[in-house]
Order: sequence, then structure tokens, then C-alpha cells
Amino acid sequence: MALIIRKYGGTSVASLDHIRRVAWSAASAKEKNNQVVIVVSAMGDETNRLMQLLAEITPNTTGREIDALLATGEQTCAALLAMTLESLGQKAKSFTGSQLPLLTDNIFSKARILDLPTKKLRKTLEAGFIPVIAGFQGVTEDGSITTLGRGGSDTTAVALAAALQADYCEIYTDVDGVYTADPNICPRARHVKKIAYPEMLEMAGLGAKVLHVRAVELAQKYQVSLVVKPFFNGNKQTWIISEEDVMENYIIKGVTLEKNVSKISLIRIPDRPGIAYQILSPLADAAINVDMIIQNASIDGFTDLTFTISKTDLHKATELINEVAQKINALEVQAANNIVKISAVGIGIKNNPGVAARMFESLSAESINIEMISTSEYRISCVIEEKYGELAVRAVHHAFGLDNEKELSE
Amino acid sequence: MALIIRKYGGTSVASLDHIRRVAWSAASAKEKNNQVVIVVSAMGDETNRLMQLLAEITPNTTGREIDALLATGEQTCAALLAMTLESLGQKAKSFTGSQLPLLTDNIFSKARILDLPTKKLRKTLEAGFIPVIAGFQGVTEDGSITTLGRGGSDTTAVALAAALQADYCEIYTDVDGVYTADPNICPRARHVKKIAYPEMLEMAGLGAKVLHVRAVELAQKYQVSLVVKPFFNGNKQTWIISEEDVMENYIIKGVTLEKNVSKISLIRIPDRPGIAYQILSPLADAAINVDMIIQNASIDGFTDLTFTISKTDLHKATELINEVAQKINALEVQAANNIVKISAVGIGIKNNPGVAARMFESLSAESINIEMISTSEYRISCVIEEKYGELAVRAVHHAFGLDNEKELSE
Repeated sequence: MALIIRKYGGTSVASLDHIRRVAWSAASAKEKNNQVVIVVSAMGDETNRLMQLLAEITPNTTGREIDALLATGEQTCAALLAMTLESLGQKAKSFTGSQLPLLTDNIFSKARILDLPTKKLRKTLEAGFIPVIAGFQGVTEDGSITTLGRGGSDTTAVALAAALQADYCEIYTDVDGVYTADPNICPRARHVKKIAYPEMLEMAGLGAKVLHVRAVELAQKYQVSLVVKPFFNGNKQTWIISEEDVMENYIIKGVTLEKNVSKISLIRIPDRPGIAYQILSPLADAAINVDMIIQNASIDGFTDLTFTISKTDLHKATELINEVAQKINALEVQAANNIVKISAVGIGIKNNPGVAARMFESLSAESINIEMISTSEYRISCVIEEKYGELAVRAVHHAFGLDNEKELSE
Repeated sequence: MALIIRKYGGTSVASLDHIRRVAWSAASAKEKNNQVVIVVSAMGDETNRLMQLLAEITPNTTGREIDALLATGEQTCAALLAMTLESLGQKAKSFTGSQLPLLTDNIFSKARILDLPTKKLRKTLEAGFIPVIAGFQGVTEDGSITTLGRGGSDTTAVALAAALQADYCEIYTDVDGVYTADPNICPRARHVKKIAYPEMLEMAGLGAKVLHVRAVELAQKYQVSLVVKPFFNGNKQTWIISEEDVMENYIIKGVTLEKNVSKISLIRIPDRPGIAYQILSPLADAAINVDMIIQNASIDGFTDLTFTISKTDLHKATELINEVAQKINALEVQAANNIVKISAVGIGIKNNPGVAARMFESLSAESINIEMISTSEYRISCVIEEKYGELAVRAVHHAFGLDNEKELSE
């Protein structure tokens, strides 16, 4: 007998027919002598409907009421699914975040989980019920309803799996897991059956739209085995598990392309201690996230500084940097957004010193110039001209032997 | 400074525009240095929408999940109204039944209120907030969401008024209060400014669709002054208050006509102790409510028994009574649903012995035959042939001097 947490996203519960299918599937897992806890998102575009109501009211409002409003979407879905399970002869019970309780801080709209007592849930499971949890929501100590922000229902599911020490956590979604690259860019991309948490974090952070970083981080922290499955199409699935459980047949697990990148360069600035801080702290104050930073070698006490930010921040950042440039007497400020960031991700990187070289070589073979480079334990990233982005993905994918007819075995 | 509970029904909050109007009105009451607590129903036909979802799932379900589903309607509305109040510069905070908490028993779909602690609400009021309460809902001691059944939001409002010892409780609705008779039947019916609880109970129970009996009973029990106001049309209003505060200018406060009546007669049954019980107990077991009962004088140890039930129960009741009739050897069972019940209601009845006679006289003057009579402290009711129903209302209304151009002053 296994204890399984199953999370169904909005598209899996978009209509009563969908909910019926989810109920059948959950009931059959239960019949196989498992304990099953279900976590649901709001039905289809219900959250959008509520957001639209919100938008019609003036934005001059606190998060508390927004969260109280949005939380109804998941509550509705959880109650409907519990009823549907009952109609199939199962015992089921819905729980809101307040009812569990899933205790959070009071940062409305992106609350963080503080505690998740399991006594009530365990009793419910032992009495033979299928608990159906409204995802995405929690409650503060003084009883206000909170929501967990983006990826919230995934986070609820992983938190429950951790708290209940579940055998694993299934995430049903409308994609069939992780690929070695975006199949739209790289037709020879292959499905990935197993991926380690840090690989998934790099992939998720770089734009693979399978799971939110936060849910993966939580899974890593509590060593929750995650599996992503498509609810409707096919039976492919990707396990997200600990590094030790992923055999390293492949040095690189995937290649990602990030398009939301732009860069700013300050030309000929004084090379003195604290200069980088002086330049970048106004951006930090404006909550603009700086990703890669390169400072050239100093010549005659002067240097150049280049950094990347997301495209959406470019306008604001340029304004701020122009102010700084005047103060520090920079020669010039250059801004560009015709760039992309290509990354190779894999737990094999740290033990294989030649990986970076192989990546640079494959780009060079296609006459693609590398403008910036950054590396981490699990990732090598290069900033290149935007127009070469897709070609670069295919070149690197090929260079690391990821192209194949067969599915990637690990 | 007054403490006022205001309840807005579904039609008053049918759209965001409606909610904005409600918010303006509540904010202006607050600006006049009052403390205001708002209770809302679900928006417009939201509850019907949820009921329809319910109906599409098989009816084989427990009340717990139905209540969890339905409660979202009021929660959504409360959060939207609280936001709208904030957008007007007011401090506002929404509360679900679970958040108050409004504690109930666990009879889902028609839970009864057990306790309503006010500590949290008082703190919220003292901090200058307008609390916006999701009506119609409560929570069991072990945290399950319950709903209060028909008239639930009115009941929430009255319960809050009682618990907070509010100065009064305003019920905003789509009718402009109580009339001396249904204006569609009796064009000379007049608006009533003040009515005593027991009068209102008789009126509500007999079909005046202004307030649910349960809310009025609760108001009477805790001596909560209620006022019913139309939200959109005009400024008429009806106060529902204690008997002592209503001056008895009029013996009769109103005349009601109940059409959902049918009767069953058992002819020639043995007149022995316990016979009525033997006949009526199968109806009680089947949850069929018997209203009026008449037993004729005994002749040769035999008698006839006639009773009224609602039309909707006639079929089932006739079946049950036919069985009983065989057992006790009744000569015949007669059923009829071409009858109505006309009632005169007023606290003056108990002190004016001639009231019944005047009512009978006015019916007789129109050649209307009275088939059954029942009286209580505040009401005289006659069963008559259906076709005379509306004529009878006008005749009795006239006989008690209720016809008038001017509005009834008390």
C-alpha cells in the first residue's frame, strides 16, 4: 500500500466531465489499495474570471480580500470533485487551506508555508476517505485566507507529500513532462524519464514550463519524489528525484533557450573598489534582477561593465543606469535587447571539465559569437545574438549526443 | 453613534455595479459616525449556477460537500464588497462563517446556530473597519463548512445583531416591506410601517415573501429591531419590532391568502380514544405537515375527521390515509385541492372578541361558505372554496377598515 499525493491542474478539471474523469482515475488508484490525497486547482479559467472581476474594481485594495476572493475557485473545485467521488461510491472529504490548516505567513498573494499539521488528514485517510484539498491557499494564524502565488497548487501538493511522508507526488498537467530541448525548436529533442532536482531547477528557472521552481525547491528540500504526467495524452512521464537516483548516462540533461534577456554596458568606468555596487544597487532598490555580470580587465585604471536583465526591465534599468553613468563619469551607456541566453543543464557538468569547451566549440562551428558566459555546478550559459538562438540550441543538443530516435533512458 | 447590521440580498448585489452602490451606501452610513456590519448573500443567480453544477453530478452525495460548494457564493461577494469599500477609502474586512466563527450543528444544508462569538468582530469594529460577512453559512466545531438553509442570510444578520447587541438590523431587499394584503389581489392594500414580531411571523408563515420565519423568530427571541427596506425603489420601509412598540390603531394588521392547501376527509370512523393519532401518525412519519384538523361531533359512536395539508403532499398523503382507512374500517376517504386558506392577522385579535364574528360576517355577506376555521392568539383562518379566494381577501380587508388612500400609520 502506497500513500500517493495527486495534483490536478486547471486544464485537468476544466469541466464537470473532466472532474468525472479525475474522479474515476483517483477512485481506481484507491481501489488498488493505495491511500490517495488529491490536490486541485480552480476549474479551467475560473481564476481568470475572478481576476477579471478584480480588475473591474479599482486596484486600490489590499491583498487580504484578493486572496479571499481567489481562494473560492479551488474550494468550488474541491467540493465538486469530492461529490463526484461520492457519486462513484467512494468516501471523500474536501478541505480548504483553512480547514487543513495549511498555515502561512501573512504576505497575501504570495504567502509562504509555515506549518502543515497532518493529524486531521491522517484521521481522514485512516477512516477510508479520499481527502480532496483545495490547492494554492492557506490561512494565517489569525484566520485570514492567503494564497501561495504562482505554482501554488503544485507547492501545496509537494508540501502535503512532505508533511505526510507520502511515497510520491503525482502532478497531472497538460504537458507530458520534460524534454531535452523545446521540441518546437529542436525536432530531435527527446523525452526525459528521470531528472534530478537541481537539473529541474535550472530547467524550470530557464523557462521549461512544467513545474514552478518553488515546488521543485520544496521537493528537493524534503526529498519528495515527484512525477509529472499528462492527464489526457499518452503515458509519458518524468520523474523528478534526488541526484543519486539518476544515473549519469548523459552529461547534459537538456538545452534551454531564454529569450527574455537584454543587456546594458557601461563603457570606460573607473576601476575602483565598490564601483560595481555603486552601479547595481539602484537596480536592486528598484527590484530589478541582474543575472549575468562581466567586468573586463582593467586598462589604465578604467574598465567596462556589462550585465543582463530581463527585457521587461530594460527601459527602467536604462534610466537608472544613465543617472549612475553621469555620477561616475562613464564614457557611454549601451543597451541591447537583441540577445538570448542558451544554457546546457546537467548534473554531469561538475565532474566533466571538458563540457564548457565542447559547448563553445559547437557554437563556434556554427560561427556563433559568444558575448557573455556564466557557469554553475549544473549549468553553462552563453549570451549570443538573438537570431542564432534556435540554431545554437540544435547545435549544442547535437554536440552532447542528445539527438536520438529513441527516448532518453535516464 | 449607532451599531447597525445591514443585510443585502442577492438582487442588491447582482453585479459589480450593484456592489458599488451598496458600498457607497454603507460608506455613507459609516461616515455618519455609525458602526456598520454588512451581511451579503451570493451575487444574483450565483447560487442557482452552483446548484446547477450540483444537479449535473449525481444526487448521491452528502450535505457536507454541497455546503462547501454553496458557501463560495457568499464568500466571493463578501470579498468583492470589501475590496470595493477599500477602493472608496474605507477600511473593510471580509469574514466567512468559518472566520467569525458562526458555530452551528452539523445538520448540513439547514444547520442551526449554536454560538456566535463576537470578540473578533468587536476588535475589527473598534479598529475602524467595516466587517463584511458572508451570510448563509457557518462552521461546525470540527471545522466543516455548513449552510443555514432558506432565509439563511437574513438569519445570519439577525444573529449578528443579537450577538453584538446592535441598535437595529436593516434588511435590504427587492420588495418595499409588508402590505396589509397582496396588492395584486387587493388594490387598496396599504403599506405597513410597523408590525409586531408575532404578526410578522403569521404573515411570513402564510406566504408574505418578505422575510423568512426563522429570521423573524430569532429577532423576536432576542428582541432585535428589524427594518425591511427596498434597495432600489422608493423609501418605504417596514419596522418589525416588539408588540409594545406597535400601537394598536388597527385590530387586524393584514389579510393573507394561502393557495398551497388541500384537504382530506375520512368519513364515518369509529370515535374512540387514540383514533386521530392512529390516522395522523403515518403522515408525521412521512414528514407531512398537517395544518388544520376538524373532528365532527360523534353520532352513534362514529365521527368524521378532516384535515388540511399542503397541495404538494396530497398524493402521498392520500395513499397513506387510504391504508389507514382500510385498517379502521372508514366508510370513505375524500380528497380535495380546490380550496384556499384566508387569514386575518393582528395582535389586536386576542383583546377583541368580536373579530372572528366580523370576519365570518364579511364572508357570509359575499355568500362565501366557510369549510373549516382555526384561530390563534394573533390569527383567524378560514378554509373556503378556491374560486372565492381573492374576493374573500378584499371583503375581509374592507371589513376591518384596512382599505384606505393614506398609508397605514402604524
